[in-house]
Amino acid sequence: MTPHVDVVNIAEKLRQFGEHWQPKIVGELNDSFVKLVKFQGEFVWHHHDAEDELFLIVKGSMRMRLRDRDLIVRPGEFVIIPRGVEHMPVADEEAHVLLFEPKTTLNTGNVSNERTVPKLERI
Amino acid sequence: MTPHVDVVNIAEKLRQFGEHWQPKIVGELNDSFVKLVKFQGEFVWHHHDAEDELFLIVKGSMRMRLRDRDLIVRPGEFVIIPRGVEHMPVADEEAHVLLFEPKTTLNTGNVSNERTVPKLERI
Repeated sequence: MTPHVDVVNIAEKLRQFGEHWQPKIVGELNDSFVKLVKFQGEFVWHHHDAEDELFLIVKGSMRMRLRDRDLIVRPGEFVIIPRGVEHMPVADEEAHVLLFEPKTTLNTGNVSNERTVPKLERI
Repeated sequence: MTPHVDVVNIAEKLRQFGEHWQPKIVGELNDSFVKLVKFQGEFVWHHHDAEDELFLIVKGSMRMRLRDRDLIVRPGEFVIIPRGVEHMPVADEEAHVLLFEPKTTLNTGNVSNERTVPKLERI
């Protein structure tokens, strides 16, 4: 039998949790994780020294604040934040987001505070 | 100004091409590309020696044939095919698919034939 090959339904995974800003691992490939997360309100300004991050909006919309401008990201759209670029995700209403990033990525990047989630749950 | 940070609208990118089985690069992060591709009909049996591949269905549905079973993958669902696992994508009707895979990944993996696309277009 072929191991570890399963179809993942994104909406079904999103129904399994309600917390905001706590990414859940839903897939793993090469050196990266696929994560799902729910955003609401403001996160924290941070950057990642060595990792580029992809944010794909599944539901709702988000504002990705950069130091010189804001980007609005809507369902069916994604944005890639390159390493070193300071950013702050903001969601005025709840947004459901798929993340694609290296396994080493910490959600708050260079910042450590009450929003930091060092060990992510797999669902 | 913060460079190279743009929102990508998946549907808009998909409107820019019509060919089947010719992945287009729409994003780049870390060692990977984000690609969009349209499937119709049967592809070829192949595997990738050193790369895991993610297929996220945007529109339509696909059947991912494995040697011991078939997986149906629908919009809002994804499947990760680990390195070494033989697979053949099949789409009875046209399917639009987002791929996430290492930059080194060749679409036909270990096989080289008329379906092989050695140099991918960026859109």
